[in-house]
Amino acid sequence: MKYEIKCIGVLTSGGDSPGMNAAIRSVTRAAIFNGIRVKAIYRGYKGLITNEITEFQTQNVSNIIQQGGTILKSARCAEFRTPEGRKTAYENMKAAEIDALVVIGGDGTFTGARIFAQEYNVPIVGLPGTIDNDLYGTDSTIGYDTALNTIIEAVDKIRDTATSHERLFFIEVMGRDAGFLALNSALASGAEAAIIPERETQEDQLEELIKNGFRKSKNSSIVIVAESEITGGANALAELMHKEHPEYDVRVTILGHIQRGGSPTAHDRIIASRMGVAAIDALLDEQRSIMIGIVNDEIVHVPFTKAIKDDKPVDETLLGVLSILSI
Amino acid sequence: MKYEIKCIGVLTSGGDSPGMNAAIRSVTRAAIFNGIRVKAIYRGYKGLITNEITEFQTQNVSNIIQQGGTILKSARCAEFRTPEGRKTAYENMKAAEIDALVVIGGDGTFTGARIFAQEYNVPIVGLPGTIDNDLYGTDSTIGYDTALNTIIEAVDKIRDTATSHERLFFIEVMGRDAGFLALNSALASGAEAAIIPERETQEDQLEELIKNGFRKSKNSSIVIVAESEITGGANALAELMHKEHPEYDVRVTILGHIQRGGSPTAHDRIIASRMGVAAIDALLDEQRSIMIGIVNDEIVHVPFTKAIKDDKPVDETLLGVLSILSI
Amino acid sequence: MKYEIKCIGVLTSGGDSPGMNAAIRSVTRAAIFNGIRVKAIYRGYKGLITNEITEFQTQNVSNIIQQGGTILKSARCAEFRTPEGRKTAYENMKAAEIDALVVIGGDGTFTGARIFAQEYNVPIVGLPGTIDNDLYGTDSTIGYDTALNTIIEAVDKIRDTATSHERLFFIEVMGRDAGFLALNSALASGAEAAIIPERETQEDQLEELIKNGFRKSKNSSIVIVAESEITGGANALAELMHKEHPEYDVRVTILGHIQRGGSPTAHDRIIASRMGVAAIDALLDEQRSIMIGIVNDEIVHVPFTKAIKDDKPVDETLLGVLSILSI
Amino acid sequence: MKYEIKCIGVLTSGGDSPGMNAAIRSVTRAAIFNGIRVKAIYRGYKGLITNEITEFQTQNVSNIIQQGGTILKSARCAEFRTPEGRKTAYENMKAAEIDALVVIGGDGTFTGARIFAQEYNVPIVGLPGTIDNDLYGTDSTIGYDTALNTIIEAVDKIRDTATSHERLFFIEVMGRDAGFLALNSALASGAEAAIIPERETQEDQLEELIKNGFRKSKNSSIVIVAESEITGGANALAELMHKEHPEYDVRVTILGHIQRGGSPTAHDRIIASRMGVAAIDALLDEQRSIMIGIVNDEIVHVPFTKAIKDDKPVDETLLGVLSILSI
Repeated sequence: MKYEIKCIGVLTSGGDSPGMNAAIRSVTRAAIFNGIRVKAIYRGYKGLITNEITEFQTQNVSNIIQQGGTILKSARCAEFRTPEGRKTAYENMKAAEIDALVVIGGDGTFTGARIFAQEYNVPIVGLPGTIDNDLYGTDSTIGYDTALNTIIEAVDKIRDTATSHERLFFIEVMGRDAGFLALNSALASGAEAAIIPERETQEDQLEELIKNGFRKSKNSSIVIVAESEITGGANALAELMHKEHPEYDVRVTILGHIQRGGSPTAHDRIIASRMGVAAIDALLDEQRSIMIGIVNDEIVHVPFTKAIKDDKPVDETLLGVLSILSI
Repeated sequence: MKYEIKCIGVLTSGGDSPGMNAAIRSVTRAAIFNGIRVKAIYRGYKGLITNEITEFQTQNVSNIIQQGGTILKSARCAEFRTPEGRKTAYENMKAAEIDALVVIGGDGTFTGARIFAQEYNVPIVGLPGTIDNDLYGTDSTIGYDTALNTIIEAVDKIRDTATSHERLFFIEVMGRDAGFLALNSALASGAEAAIIPERETQEDQLEELIKNGFRKSKNSSIVIVAESEITGGANALAELMHKEHPEYDVRVTILGHIQRGGSPTAHDRIIASRMGVAAIDALLDEQRSIMIGIVNDEIVHVPFTKAIKDDKPVDETLLGVLSILSI
Repeated sequence: MKYEIKCIGVLTSGGDSPGMNAAIRSVTRAAIFNGIRVKAIYRGYKGLITNEITEFQTQNVSNIIQQGGTILKSARCAEFRTPEGRKTAYENMKAAEIDALVVIGGDGTFTGARIFAQEYNVPIVGLPGTIDNDLYGTDSTIGYDTALNTIIEAVDKIRDTATSHERLFFIEVMGRDAGFLALNSALASGAEAAIIPERETQEDQLEELIKNGFRKSKNSSIVIVAESEITGGANALAELMHKEHPEYDVRVTILGHIQRGGSPTAHDRIIASRMGVAAIDALLDEQRSIMIGIVNDEIVHVPFTKAIKDDKPVDETLLGVLSILSI
Repeated sequence: MKYEIKCIGVLTSGGDSPGMNAAIRSVTRAAIFNGIRVKAIYRGYKGLITNEITEFQTQNVSNIIQQGGTILKSARCAEFRTPEGRKTAYENMKAAEIDALVVIGGDGTFTGARIFAQEYNVPIVGLPGTIDNDLYGTDSTIGYDTALNTIIEAVDKIRDTATSHERLFFIEVMGRDAGFLALNSALASGAEAAIIPERETQEDQLEELIKNGFRKSKNSSIVIVAESEITGGANALAELMHKEHPEYDVRVTILGHIQRGGSPTAHDRIIASRMGVAAIDALLDEQRSIMIGIVNDEIVHVPFTKAIKDDKPVDETLLGVLSILSI
């Protein structure tokens, strides 16, 4: 028997990212375009449990494509990790006549979705919403390009000061133990180097820099450091530097939460729009437990299990480009 | 006998685009990294003829990665289209000990390069520098992503006013008879429609919009119009609209030259950096008369003849996405 | 007998300007802070006549301080210029239990307010919301600083191209026949000159420029032109230039409606916030038919008649500064 | 005997601020306009001692009005605090035929200038270049408005995340123990509160907030904290909060050096331009040992002793406005 979808629920979960609103808009309008009703679920899985659910029309998503954050809000939800929590969520979902879900978030979101889908036989499609770009099976995630541009604008400002004072700056960027933001922002901002978790230890990368005559002929230097619980990030490196190479005048800036916000770039708005339409298409094609991705500018379907488990490698040839350009 | 390259010349030609400076920086440093000297040629081919040539060191390209425009300046050069002009150019090039050229620009630039390369057996590699994205063989050109983002920032501002006053805006964007900027900026800015030269006549597209109940339930509408000599662009459409549908309160904004300037986005800086390194690699590999492109995130070599002659199609499925999302 | 104010109405009228939302937020919260109810009136005076009136709580104005445009929308309203229209407006106002009005707009808005206040003995306080800065009695108007910064960001982008190509650009900015935006944006953007309606004819200003050796030693030049119905603005000047001095390669950009939108600057948000609080204070102090202004960083009260009628002079010493700095 | 000025030196010293380049441009061109030669001194007073001095023409300051940082670079200089250092500086100055100095910086800069002027009878005029706005005798300093706007853009981004996750953010801003940036950015960004060094202890301000039902009905809250060595800034407050009110989910962001950089706003470019011209006028009028200020939009002269010693009060009425608007 065919499982007919007359009404979908949409939610955002986990860390917010720019472009989530563009995705919500696209999912909502593509559903309505196809004759499917849309229920907005607030605060991620928590709203399914606490029953914060409202019907959306096309005008509920007017004028949000350019806004950062998520109008559906987001939250971590410990209760959804328990069978009781998911039972309540399912009952509320049924009561609201929701036949399928579109969930926007990162791997925590998809892990929850996968379990829920199995337990209750619910069709769920995911959209990759995270600034970290650490999901396997898609070239980029919604929010990554915006975060990258936010970082380079910040680094451009810091460079003004670095150049005026001839200093060495360690700038820490986000990435949840993945080096995409650090490596690409280093390349884009003309930084001297990127220190990323994918390569040996951060200490070794620093020693290598110094041995290679780092900053020999330069007035100022900027090193982008990926946040990483293992090494302690930029502050730990600065202390190390201070101890072993006190001749450098080192400053640290931790960019922090400005990286998650802001109006999304054209790229993030476009992929969010395309992916939202593709999510509804996939549900109509009876697809489930997949993440929508974009590979080589084409929409692809990635099983949740693959998207979550497989490591997505950084393009290490970019390290070569970076080291050539910092001479 | 191997043609050994000890010194390259670099120039920018045609309309300037954001990221040209990042490309100049990359070409310069990659050459020096490989032991090759660099001569900067000012004002495109004109500087070859008038002998405006200077040697560059790595520090000549410091702190330019974030700057719009081109530090080498650009110019149209009628003389280079004559055999005499090219002869002078070649003699100056030899006198300056330049063995090969890297030229950054669009199809006019590559047309000149192809002829010059044939006549004088000069190794030339091109980098695609244009906001129009109209070069075959590369997914994106240096400057296109920046122009797209400049447009959506402008449209975001205009939408504030459009929404406050409930008006219909026709916004004209650049594109040199290609619809990439118009179609993608319409999608990214949540516009009602894009009117592009790739599809029938602009008049038909407008009629279609109106028949489809255009703006039925909306407070305001924005239509992005590709500049096009055939139809006269946004002003011509507004006049037509005024004549045939005087019930609409229509305003026109022609974005103009702000689209060519500004600090390049992360994407444009990264592709410019990668392409610059690839250009030197290509010359060292004895490649010539090719444009460096990026397809599916990999560097490719595209013969000048293909890059110039073949039409690059817009992705018409995006028109479908746009029409779904403007309900 | 004291006229006690228990409920105010707030509206925006005329051309929208960035910071109007910050003003709406401030008026609303300052009223509620003082125990006064707030009714939001949509589409300016039109909403009074068509009865588009809603009660606002503090949360209705959450998260709007940074948004351009006006959440109350704006409209021209011919009917309010008739006694019948104003009668309906007054009846609706009374029915909604509105005791006083705060109107945000420019001189058209205050002209309507003055007549309405006289006819029906309604306490009305105005806030100066216009990008043109053409209201007498206040150093700056809400939106002016944002428009100025929008212009210089646009000019910075155009300068990238102007410098790369060594061209002469005429850039037309708004101002409603006042030269504030043109003169100050010329100064702030390093333009060669400003052509403003306050000085002789535009043709004379252009001739003066050329006689003074305009662009003698410069690579490129930017001239800011105030829009003005008398002269036809930048296009008319460019034609004149083309006829009389064909040796210049002239380009025109008309910045248009991007100048009205965008997120307000710190300055505009701060004066909007201070003025909104001051408007409620003034009503509580039984003031009426005044515009709130800021002079020398202090709140002042300006009778509507003065704000509308008196001409506000541009600081012509700035023309001297501009001509010194463009050598 | 009249001390005739045929050549001036210009330098930037102390922390850099956006608009310093606009000031250098203005000083240079105003001097040349008046027939005075200009020597650029690099790295502040250090360059006077190490003799890093170059002659500037008008084109040396072309295309810098929009750039952050300082093309003259800046440095702290311990040697200039010694009589020997100043003696060398004076000798170099004389050897370079410099008759007078224009120094751009903050109170450290003016303290050095005052002593040097006294010891060697050198005419010196100062321009207030600091983001902190903490100089007595001028309504605003070059760089302050830009820093304020940089802060609110960052807070706008963080608010996207704060609102999406319903968190409490402590955002630390610069100010060198003055509350101008914190108080005004709180007002402009719609923050809940500003904690500034001018008022009692920061702990008391925090307790007051919580007692007043802080965040009672709000989804998220942002508190701007002035950096201050006394209290330890945002981190110390967050720890205190965590200990005494663990029910709040607190995050800290320290904006750091991004506040010093970036392209200057229109306001900063305009005051820098006007002040630069005024500095040359003052020297021609035989003024010395004064800082140029702007009070009520008019140029004023402030003796170094006053500018340095007197405390400039923050406008505490703004705290009242802030507390009304955060209901």
